[in-house]
Amino acid sequence: MPVRVVGFDGDDTLWHSETRFSVTQAEFRELLKRHVPDADVDARLSEMEMKNLSIYGYGVKSFTLSMLETAIELTEARIPASDLEVILGWGKRMLMEPTQLIDGVEETLRTLSGRHDLLLITKGDLFDQESKLARSGLGDLFGGVEILSEKNVDTYRGVFQRRGVKPQEFVMVGNSLRSDVVPVVALGGHAVHIPYEVTWHHEEVPASELPAEGWWRISSIRELSGLLQTI
Amino acid sequence: MPVRVVGFDGDDTLWHSETRFSVTQAEFRELLKRHVPDADVDARLSEMEMKNLSIYGYGVKSFTLSMLETAIELTEARIPASDLEVILGWGKRMLMEPTQLIDGVEETLRTLSGRHDLLLITKGDLFDQESKLARSGLGDLFGGVEILSEKNVDTYRGVFQRRGVKPQEFVMVGNSLRSDVVPVVALGGHAVHIPYEVTWHHEEVPASELPAEGWWRISSIRELSGLLQTI
Repeated sequence: MPVRVVGFDGDDTLWHSETRFSVTQAEFRELLKRHVPDADVDARLSEMEMKNLSIYGYGVKSFTLSMLETAIELTEARIPASDLEVILGWGKRMLMEPTQLIDGVEETLRTLSGRHDLLLITKGDLFDQESKLARSGLGDLFGGVEILSEKNVDTYRGVFQRRGVKPQEFVMVGNSLRSDVVPVVALGGHAVHIPYEVTWHHEEVPASELPAEGWWRISSIRELSGLLQTI
Repeated sequence: MPVRVVGFDGDDTLWHSETRFSVTQAEFRELLKRHVPDADVDARLSEMEMKNLSIYGYGVKSFTLSMLETAIELTEARIPASDLEVILGWGKRMLMEPTQLIDGVEETLRTLSGRHDLLLITKGDLFDQESKLARSGLGDLFGGVEILSEKNVDTYRGVFQRRGVKPQEFVMVGNSLRSDVVPVVALGGHAVHIPYEVTWHHEEVPASELPAEGWWRISSIRELSGLLQTI
């Protein structure tokens, strides 16, 4: 069955996201080191994010709240409010930064939009994701946008039902094996993995849990158009 | 044309929401009064929320971040981090509270779900709204869930297109004239307004901007089933 619908992840597939987080996290580490020189700031922040995930969900606002809580906890509330204000400012900066497209994205989407129905299927904070899409200038190339709180078998099945898509005619393109490849292939769809320079630990999948077939890996979105013609 | 699809707002239509905010805001006011006895805390928080709306969007996480920023600003950063930690805790408490259904909601939805397709159409934070719906126990009664970052003519039009709904066969039920009534009636649909005990100022609409017809007002969701049979 030919590929009718192509789904794209947003963060770190179409535009840079993890780098925004890494830059801020480096600043956070420096700020905290002044108060608690011996603390493993990255590990503590990462634990806090995992602990808060079921309460806050994904996204910049959740990350900001977890930075604040980590800063207060690690300094036993000795950190001055002026430093916490700086952290609040980083969160706003991340939310307002221009959307930086990954190399090759615009040309590829323009080519593919003439041949397939394109869907943006992304997870995270609704408001932030819509705002990034609007600022990306890519909105018109997508026939639909689905912002999910999690990407798993149930939520992809929901997208297929809502959009009238058969898994066999669908290819998902993204940087996360856990969110973009495994659940889609489990439902009988196809997937293309484009690794990003950094992967959040939470998105990693042990090799033994990867499907044997139904998915491909390419190193740049520039190879996507050629690959789709062979599927 | 008979009513085929009924859309329901969530916050303050199906479950209590504004009261969660009011209770926390009263605690916030008391906390701040200890540091800045003369400040108009409510006015300053409200200004901060409006200023941040285009960056954060709606929801509890946005509210928490605005409380923190207001507290730091009003005290000129003299507030101790331990007080800010208390504010962070209020945000989490709001996100984890059980979903409190409004009187009459469950019976009404059970009755109507046999006669119409029910859609939940709510705005705010994706993660928080899905979590509230899951905890409400009402999920199975809805044929679909749409969580929007704003409710306006464009976003309702998108829902109608995605769901294959004609405006004339649609009724929207909610507590906000601005979000649930005006845009739906403008598109040719119907609306039922059920005022909640408190209305956030931002949701108010001047009487001159209200449509002349196409909508009704009832005082309790218990009256909805009878009303729908007359439309």
